[in-house]
Amino acid sequence: SASQDLDLEILEAVMGQLDANRIRENLRELSKEPHLATSPRDEVLVQLLLRRWQDPESGLDSAGTSEYEVLLSFPSQKQPNRVDVVGPAGGILFSSQRSEENLTGEQGDPNVVPPYAAYAPPGTPQGLLVYANRGSEEDFMELYQQGIKLQDSIVLTRYGGVGRRAKAVNAAKYGVAGVLVYTDPADINDGRSLPNETFPYSWGLPPSGVERGSYFEYFGDPLTPYLPANPSSFRLDSDNASGFPPIPTQPIGFKDAEVLLCNLQGASAPAAWQGALGCDYKLGPGFRSDGIFPAGSQVNVSVYNRLELRNSSNVLGIIRGAVEPDRYVLYGNHRDSWVHGAVDPSSGTAVLLELSRVLGTLLKKGTWRPRRSIVFASWGAEEFGLIGSTEFTEESFSKLQERAVAYINVDISVFANATLRAQGTPPVQSVIFSAAKQIRAPGPSSLSIYDNWIRYSNRSSPVYGLVPSLGTLGAGSDYAPFIHFLGISSMDIAYTYDRSKTSARIYPTYHTAFDTFDYVDKFVDPGFSSHQAVAQTVGSVLLRLSDSLFLPLNVSDYSETLRSLLQAAQQDLGGLLEQHNISLGPLVTAVEKFEEAATVLGQHVSALQKGTPDPLQVRMLNDQLMLLERTFLNSRAFPEERYYSHVLWAPRTGSVATFPGLSNACSKAMNTGPGSAAWAEVQRQLSILVVALEGAAATLRPVADL
Amino acid sequence: SASQDLDLEILEAVMGQLDANRIRENLRELSKEPHLATSPRDEVLVQLLLRRWQDPESGLDSAGTSEYEVLLSFPSQKQPNRVDVVGPAGGILFSSQRSEENLTGEQGDPNVVPPYAAYAPPGTPQGLLVYANRGSEEDFMELYQQGIKLQDSIVLTRYGGVGRRAKAVNAAKYGVAGVLVYTDPADINDGRSLPNETFPYSWGLPPSGVERGSYFEYFGDPLTPYLPANPSSFRLDSDNASGFPPIPTQPIGFKDAEVLLCNLQGASAPAAWQGALGCDYKLGPGFRSDGIFPAGSQVNVSVYNRLELRNSSNVLGIIRGAVEPDRYVLYGNHRDSWVHGAVDPSSGTAVLLELSRVLGTLLKKGTWRPRRSIVFASWGAEEFGLIGSTEFTEESFSKLQERAVAYINVDISVFANATLRAQGTPPVQSVIFSAAKQIRAPGPSSLSIYDNWIRYSNRSSPVYGLVPSLGTLGAGSDYAPFIHFLGISSMDIAYTYDRSKTSARIYPTYHTAFDTFDYVDKFVDPGFSSHQAVAQTVGSVLLRLSDSLFLPLNVSDYSETLRSLLQAAQQDLGGLLEQHNISLGPLVTAVEKFEEAATVLGQHVSALQKGTPDPLQVRMLNDQLMLLERTFLNSRAFPEERYYSHVLWAPRTGSVATFPGLSNACSKAMNTGPGSAAWAEVQRQLSILVVALEGAAATLRPVADL
Ligand SMILES: [Ca+2]
Ligand SMILES: [Ca+2]
Ligand SMILES: [Zn+2]
Ligand SMILES: [Zn+2]
Ligand SMILES: [Zn+2]
Ligand SMILES: [Zn+2]
Repeated sequence: SASQDLDLEILEAVMGQLDANRIRENLRELSKEPHLATSPRDEVLVQLLLRRWQDPESGLDSAGTSEYEVLLSFPSQKQPNRVDVVGPAGGILFSSQRSEENLTGEQGDPNVVPPYAAYAPPGTPQGLLVYANRGSEEDFMELYQQGIKLQDSIVLTRYGGVGRRAKAVNAAKYGVAGVLVYTDPADINDGRSLPNETFPYSWGLPPSGVERGSYFEYFGDPLTPYLPANPSSFRLDSDNASGFPPIPTQPIGFKDAEVLLCNLQGASAPAAWQGALGCDYKLGPGFRSDGIFPAGSQVNVSVYNRLELRNSSNVLGIIRGAVEPDRYVLYGNHRDSWVHGAVDPSSGTAVLLELSRVLGTLLKKGTWRPRRSIVFASWGAEEFGLIGSTEFTEESFSKLQERAVAYINVDISVFANATLRAQGTPPVQSVIFSAAKQIRAPGPSSLSIYDNWIRYSNRSSPVYGLVPSLGTLGAGSDYAPFIHFLGISSMDIAYTYDRSKTSARIYPTYHTAFDTFDYVDKFVDPGFSSHQAVAQTVGSVLLRLSDSLFLPLNVSDYSETLRSLLQAAQQDLGGLLEQHNISLGPLVTAVEKFEEAATVLGQHVSALQKGTPDPLQVRMLNDQLMLLERTFLNSRAFPEERYYSHVLWAPRTGSVATFPGLSNACSKAMNTGPGSAAWAEVQRQLSILVVALEGAAATLRPVADL
Repeated sequence: SASQDLDLEILEAVMGQLDANRIRENLRELSKEPHLATSPRDEVLVQLLLRRWQDPESGLDSAGTSEYEVLLSFPSQKQPNRVDVVGPAGGILFSSQRSEENLTGEQGDPNVVPPYAAYAPPGTPQGLLVYANRGSEEDFMELYQQGIKLQDSIVLTRYGGVGRRAKAVNAAKYGVAGVLVYTDPADINDGRSLPNETFPYSWGLPPSGVERGSYFEYFGDPLTPYLPANPSSFRLDSDNASGFPPIPTQPIGFKDAEVLLCNLQGASAPAAWQGALGCDYKLGPGFRSDGIFPAGSQVNVSVYNRLELRNSSNVLGIIRGAVEPDRYVLYGNHRDSWVHGAVDPSSGTAVLLELSRVLGTLLKKGTWRPRRSIVFASWGAEEFGLIGSTEFTEESFSKLQERAVAYINVDISVFANATLRAQGTPPVQSVIFSAAKQIRAPGPSSLSIYDNWIRYSNRSSPVYGLVPSLGTLGAGSDYAPFIHFLGISSMDIAYTYDRSKTSARIYPTYHTAFDTFDYVDKFVDPGFSSHQAVAQTVGSVLLRLSDSLFLPLNVSDYSETLRSLLQAAQQDLGGLLEQHNISLGPLVTAVEKFEEAATVLGQHVSALQKGTPDPLQVRMLNDQLMLLERTFLNSRAFPEERYYSHVLWAPRTGSVATFPGLSNACSKAMNTGPGSAAWAEVQRQLSILVVALEGAAATLRPVADL
């Protein structure tokens, strides 16, 4: 009926039926073999997902695939990428490992892709080696100031600090010819680096482990920005495509990095640049004469990566809503991995499959059909740059813009088994909290997931007091096109670390051939209780969004965010702006208008909830809640940022933690004179923001207000 | 109740209450004095509208004003613009009239703005006069090929053929120093030019009449593209603003033009360039020695226009919908005129006020409240470039995008009293036809407006057979930002000429001081029956849109349009595209998908209409109908066209009458080699189109289809 609401018994039943062991078995199957995007095994998994979602007893109403022809990057099979030390006479004195050591059998699978930097251009630069820390702008500036010759050099950088491609971009500005990237044990293993201290003896990264990754700057298929990569679509020439690293780049393991780094000559690197390889890190250029390489030895980086157009599939499944089939709650994860990908992404896919099984079974039994439609998605080619999800949003732009309630992403479902970690925009905070309060946390305590979470990560909210911290959404997984390009309220959910126990950048075998089923089963989540907890949390959020009569999106939680961004602007930019005769007054007014409209709307919701509201009244209200996020989009706000249109969550490069457009524009204008184009841009950004907030407030006010 | 539907008795009552004499009295009041945008009289009319819409017995639920600070252009009061003939010795031999002759008293009003070209830059160029026909690119090419020296000349052009500013742009490319524009009696008076053949003795343009107008290229406030012109908004420097004419330009009457043109020397102008001034038009440069000016006499054009920031108001009023208050049917017209503006725009405002009175009276009596909300709008500063309406769409973008059902524009309501004329996008055709069939046409016949219309303007529809022709929407009035920027189904409605009786470009006193109440009362629509007919047609369309349970937007009428655009592409571009290996196949498929989805949706509507549908089912369906037009928007399709985002109705400059992006791109690519950027743009435009049509079709399909 039109008043169909969330059924707590169904919710309990779903919570009870989500089975840790079935998740474990899903994971075993999913991670049995490497399933790099578009590989034969990736296609096998497409069929597996389709079969599950079309199962007559536990499947969805319908499921299908959609294929895109996208530009990926692979190492050459004939000419392996290599890193060599070349002696003064031209002889090869040392070569890096071409593949990771076969420690557990899986690493020997012929389908393991050798380590490479996807989208790094081919080339065979050779030069003296320089150590450049993380390859940030500041790092290169430091080397420059120390007088280290960077022109025509090869630089060795470590993962972390800045994005993958940024290291190569920053290097190229100084004439560097090639870039190596390695993972320092200080950053990933809490300092441990010995074989018997690392996998398969612990969760640590083995010395031969190499983090693969995409070095493409943007997301989506590189050749079809803003257009779905259908076979007939217009494509850029790959020469005209932008966002690739400018110079050859290759990742290596810390075992190889140690040989290179511990033999460098020159001044000691700054203290902050030192790592855990057991030697004093020098800057170079070149090797010390008392080391293992003769003076004048150079490093040669040979990269033979090739760009290839490949067919990548998304798998989509749907449960039709009983009452409002035109409202979609989307829930997705990527399917492709770099190697076996047990953690990334199969831990998420294992949860996705278990949740679709439980809901599908209720559906097929006739016990339940949600109020709104639920769309399940298995994205292709995420590892190359969120490609499958981005192409989907390009293809389905209008439909999603009109009808999507929210997007739930679960990529890696379990990084570690300490606590829930959630990221999202403010309207989803309340529904995640509601779900988290209702479920028991895994482990010996009898705390709820919520009460456990608040112990690990919390903040003081002016409205609610102490609450768990909801993180913000960057562009780390497939939620990015949903929130940034389409303005759909989105979230990303996982279980994660106790940060007091490890300072690892990420789980140690990330994007390596050691991210296997046994790794998860033995070290990440033995017993799979954290996987189950994520399944329950996501299941509860999903049901609440799809079944509640009133959408559980608390738009007034945006007020708190806006107020805090405003305060940062006032405190940290107010004086500077005043000096340039730019007033924050209109922004203050806009935030106040938003707060007031949100408060009044909240009262309206409460009043409606007490009565027996007309179905159309509920629908109208829900439309206001659903579409609020859309009002923050402005496709002209950031012309240089591909896809980013959300004026609150676009990337911030400015140092002040306020509205990104304002922060970035101020940081660019700061050192220019009055009347510069940069100061005009500050004013433009301020106006864009004010118009967006005023427009957002207007959509929250009573609908027949002028 | 949730099933509230159109009430035919109410509709009949409204039709019966719309009163010709009240429209006449409205017009008398509205056009009593000149009401140039932001003038004191314009402000008086703001208050008049507010008073009417806030009237306790015949007003709306609420009404208010919104003010924008916009850049307008006015002639200097101290230094009048002038056009002089200057003899070889520097003496002034002839001066154009500074104002129109005071034939009926109104022309002597001190508030009559002297004729000028709004936004033309100040300057006092002087040079030999050249006649340049309509000032098109071809016209200047002709002069160039005939060896006429254009550098530093003053050109005399006639209105028509190309846009106002285009004449100056084309001229400036050849080094022309100043532009004069006049209205030839051949183009406006069917050749008549004598005082006793023209107003006040007929509807003809008197010899001193001068068409004013905006020479700004875009629409909206010139300083705030894409941002509402609130006082605090970011503004371009007026030096950085684009779209103004490049050189001084001034309009003159044909009496003055005759003196200049009939004294030119040189070769005779081509036959197609000749007009009705009673002499052989020569090309110049300069005057013939046997004329009234000595050889070597030059023309001096002195323009002292000034740009000024002014406050312009919109007036908005709303009737709250009883069932779906969050769905808005908008109906508007501009308020500002160039002079008294009896036809333009007050004939429309007079109708607007009568319709709001009749509906307001029913509302205040408690007899009626529409299902959906109705928004009435009186826009400011339209004559300068649709400024009030554009700023409104910029300010209310999100709200309108989510909720606007349709926009109805009535600018000039009666050009002449022969027949209805309607422009709009395909979904509004059916509702206009329904309305037009139900109302009797003015005049002696007993035909319906529809049956009368079809006699004057018709086409053969593959679906319906012979039907009246619905025109397409350019950017001639305030509907432009609604359709092009926001993708809201829009229409423009008026009564107009019998084209077999006149070939006038437009009604003769357009934008002159002769466009007065008496002009309308005596010559345009004595008895005001055509005004009444427009009020009834618009009233019926408005009620059908606001009251019908099922939105009367027939989206399948887009199929016919798409098919005909496709056929034009196939016939006129297919061969060319094939030569460049560009296939129209994907476009064909997309059109087929649209047709099929529209057909199935139509069947779904019919089936629902037969039963007693659930209110939410109706709402979901109506959302599909309402939002279809939005799916054709792509804000990145035409980066050089301000506001134009609708991939079907953007301006077409290419010669093939097909999809504008494709047509324009092909016409640019045609003379470039394979592999050029221009050919890539053809492919990009084709992809944009295919994605839009596929996306549109997807929104028409059953909502739970994947
Ligand atoms: Ca794409
Ligand atoms: Ca503006
Ligand atoms: Zn992942
Ligand atoms: Zn990954
Ligand atoms: Zn007008
Ligand atoms: Zn006009």
